[in-house]
Amino acid sequence: MFQHKTAKNFCFSSFTIDHFGFLENGTFKQRFLLNDKHWHQKNNPILFYTGNEGDITWFCNNTGFMWDVAEELGAMLIFAEHRYYGESLPFGDESYSNASYLNYLTSEQALADFARLIENLKESISGAQNSPVIAIGGSYGGMLSAWLRMKYPSVVIGALAASAPIWQFTDMVPCGDFYKIVTQDFANSGINCSKNIRRSWMAVNNVSSTDEGLQWLYKEFGLCSPLKEEDVGGFKGWLQETWVNLAMVDYPYEANFLQPLPRWPIKVVCSHLQFDTGVSDKQLLHGIAQAVKVYYNYTGTAVCLNISQTATGSLGIRGWFYQACTEMVMPMCTDGIQDMFEPQVWNFQAFSDECYEIFGVRPREHWAGTVYGGKNIGSHSNIIFSNGGLDPWMSGGVTKNFSDSLVAIMIPDGAHHLDLRYNNQYDPQTVIRARALEVQYFKNWIKHSTIT
Amino acid sequence: MFQHKTAKNFCFSSFTIDHFGFLENGTFKQRFLLNDKHWHQKNNPILFYTGNEGDITWFCNNTGFMWDVAEELGAMLIFAEHRYYGESLPFGDESYSNASYLNYLTSEQALADFARLIENLKESISGAQNSPVIAIGGSYGGMLSAWLRMKYPSVVIGALAASAPIWQFTDMVPCGDFYKIVTQDFANSGINCSKNIRRSWMAVNNVSSTDEGLQWLYKEFGLCSPLKEEDVGGFKGWLQETWVNLAMVDYPYEANFLQPLPRWPIKVVCSHLQFDTGVSDKQLLHGIAQAVKVYYNYTGTAVCLNISQTATGSLGIRGWFYQACTEMVMPMCTDGIQDMFEPQVWNFQAFSDECYEIFGVRPREHWAGTVYGGKNIGSHSNIIFSNGGLDPWMSGGVTKNFSDSLVAIMIPDGAHHLDLRYNNQYDPQTVIRARALEVQYFKNWIKHSTIT
Repeated sequence: MFQHKTAKNFCFSSFTIDHFGFLENGTFKQRFLLNDKHWHQKNNPILFYTGNEGDITWFCNNTGFMWDVAEELGAMLIFAEHRYYGESLPFGDESYSNASYLNYLTSEQALADFARLIENLKESISGAQNSPVIAIGGSYGGMLSAWLRMKYPSVVIGALAASAPIWQFTDMVPCGDFYKIVTQDFANSGINCSKNIRRSWMAVNNVSSTDEGLQWLYKEFGLCSPLKEEDVGGFKGWLQETWVNLAMVDYPYEANFLQPLPRWPIKVVCSHLQFDTGVSDKQLLHGIAQAVKVYYNYTGTAVCLNISQTATGSLGIRGWFYQACTEMVMPMCTDGIQDMFEPQVWNFQAFSDECYEIFGVRPREHWAGTVYGGKNIGSHSNIIFSNGGLDPWMSGGVTKNFSDSLVAIMIPDGAHHLDLRYNNQYDPQTVIRARALEVQYFKNWIKHSTIT
Repeated sequence: MFQHKTAKNFCFSSFTIDHFGFLENGTFKQRFLLNDKHWHQKNNPILFYTGNEGDITWFCNNTGFMWDVAEELGAMLIFAEHRYYGESLPFGDESYSNASYLNYLTSEQALADFARLIENLKESISGAQNSPVIAIGGSYGGMLSAWLRMKYPSVVIGALAASAPIWQFTDMVPCGDFYKIVTQDFANSGINCSKNIRRSWMAVNNVSSTDEGLQWLYKEFGLCSPLKEEDVGGFKGWLQETWVNLAMVDYPYEANFLQPLPRWPIKVVCSHLQFDTGVSDKQLLHGIAQAVKVYYNYTGTAVCLNISQTATGSLGIRGWFYQACTEMVMPMCTDGIQDMFEPQVWNFQAFSDECYEIFGVRPREHWAGTVYGGKNIGSHSNIIFSNGGLDPWMSGGVTKNFSDSLVAIMIPDGAHHLDLRYNNQYDPQTVIRARALEVQYFKNWIKHSTIT
């Protein structure tokens, strides 16, 4: 079950808005959460969560692993919010209002914030001066943890990068792998499940071709507003994102990460999609509607389904879209054969044009590879890359050891950073072992840490 | 003797002006020099000079070491010009015209240029795709070499950072060490040499206190313009810089780096300052004038001495001052006791105010330490820090090994990056051994390099 804890202190630290230029000399308040309940002794370790694209309190509450191991390690916990998310807004409410305010929303700036914050904390907290710091993060936060160790090894002795797709960039992994994994999750969770989803796109096209069909879909799915012809693309996109999100949160117990969900939610979803693949379009879509409601209305309290939202409001969708439109360019594609989605090629130019229209900036396709080293990361040390076998983001993850200190941990029956969640009675052995191994690495890093 | 060679090709590559933000999407042409005379085979190594604050052709001609070892290593040579210097001007002739154009003059941007350039070259030069690249640089260029390996280990397998004062920053080394080394060089090069220089400041003050004295100084030093009362501070600053420069280029043979000079120039300088310390102010300053002319008029062709210039015009003084006024804050101080200069404390606030007045920006005292790890660099690998015992910049250098692959090489009788210069019949054994060891490290890195 989902447990709720909050950090003891909410704090703000003041940072330069532009670490990489000197003309903009404004500062902003970055929020971080701190808990020192188990941090008694001098120079005990600090576990530092490198916040990702959302409200830090939400990540704090969904990273029970850190709370679970704090006592054993005698560790202080810090959860640092990423600039432009939650309450850490460089230009306040105006932060998203124009391209010039958005210009400082990059991973490099965020890493510099984290590095400065760690230095500030070590200077200002009595007894922390020589505390070894370990970076921990999941998903984009995990990428940041790995990159923090790569770029600022003087501030963190090591990093746990959980479900961190640091290779989900141009020319590093096949663009279709992500959706293949989503499809496998559904194929493995019930008879005909992925097949019926694959068929559903055409069924939507067919049914939505008449006004009566659009009306039927609106009612059947219990949507919040009537479906119009021009909404059909968005409707299919919403369905697709729903399946992706389910693949990410296919946890072995009831949880509330992106949405409140039953244990092994894809199994429950697939229980509504077991019928023969020869059924009528409407029969098929009835099943899809039932399946989708597992995700959007498990609690039974949803009045209607809103196709413009697929997950918790704690995530900063717009900020992440800006990041995707600049440096976090992650090519994705589908072929409808090895995956259960409508075929869609990756079209960088179209993506770039869309970005330019929305934000006035164009993505730099190869920059992430240059700045973070692409697949050539073997010279780094003390990074754990943990991956869930059910997690579509494993497609861009590091799944093989580079060396004794640059290691991959696989959790075959884990979804998106399951290892970062609280211990749970339904945890599979694989995640229990993964967490134990992670703590073992932490202890080893701490033991060998010296400020040199 | 100084030998002259030029690279075979002058090339330009186009780069993003702002690697760390997406609003400024302009590009500029970066100049680099390329020589592939000895680069015959596929995947042979590339030696990459990380250009510092000046015209790259000048560094190219003063880095004979690379030319000397090219054949033995079968290496391609690349000399890359640093943005805002030489012909690599992001906004053309306007680049220095205002704070907003200068905003992209940082070491981080320069490193990103180098990383992109290396990637571009490896993609575009047939047979270079898997060529191991070694970064080489001296002084600030050596800092960049070390930092390129630290920040972009995916693009360079190792770095030779010659006379690179990566620790010449706030709170890393004592601010007085630099001038202590300058003083030692003079103290060791002739009887009474440093003592007479130490006395000279007061002598200048005394003599310049009358109009007759000012006129005498103007004539005695052969200055280009008459000395006024308000110029006396500048005059003393010019003398101080002259001694510093001499310490940097105290090479064992005739050379022309900052100025054309005799072999062991400080010995020649000191031959004019051997007299008893009890001589009159004018007698003392006569000796100083003779000494200074060794530096400014060794060739005998100088018509007059210009106190607003102390070295070759190939260096970009204004650009470097901007860099010092932003991230390259290097505290310096003198006490007149352990060194031969007028006592001067380090005053960050005054420096910051001066920077603000000139450039409209303020330095960030601790940023270089954060971004480049300060003294805590032990996790990096494959960097050689070479240091000359005569070189004042050794004060901020790495002079002890961290590990087998992060090593310091000392050249006791070497001045500023002597090891990077051409072989010379007058080379001391220490520099011959240093170069041999450097090449040995290169070969070892190349042997073990794999794209992983």
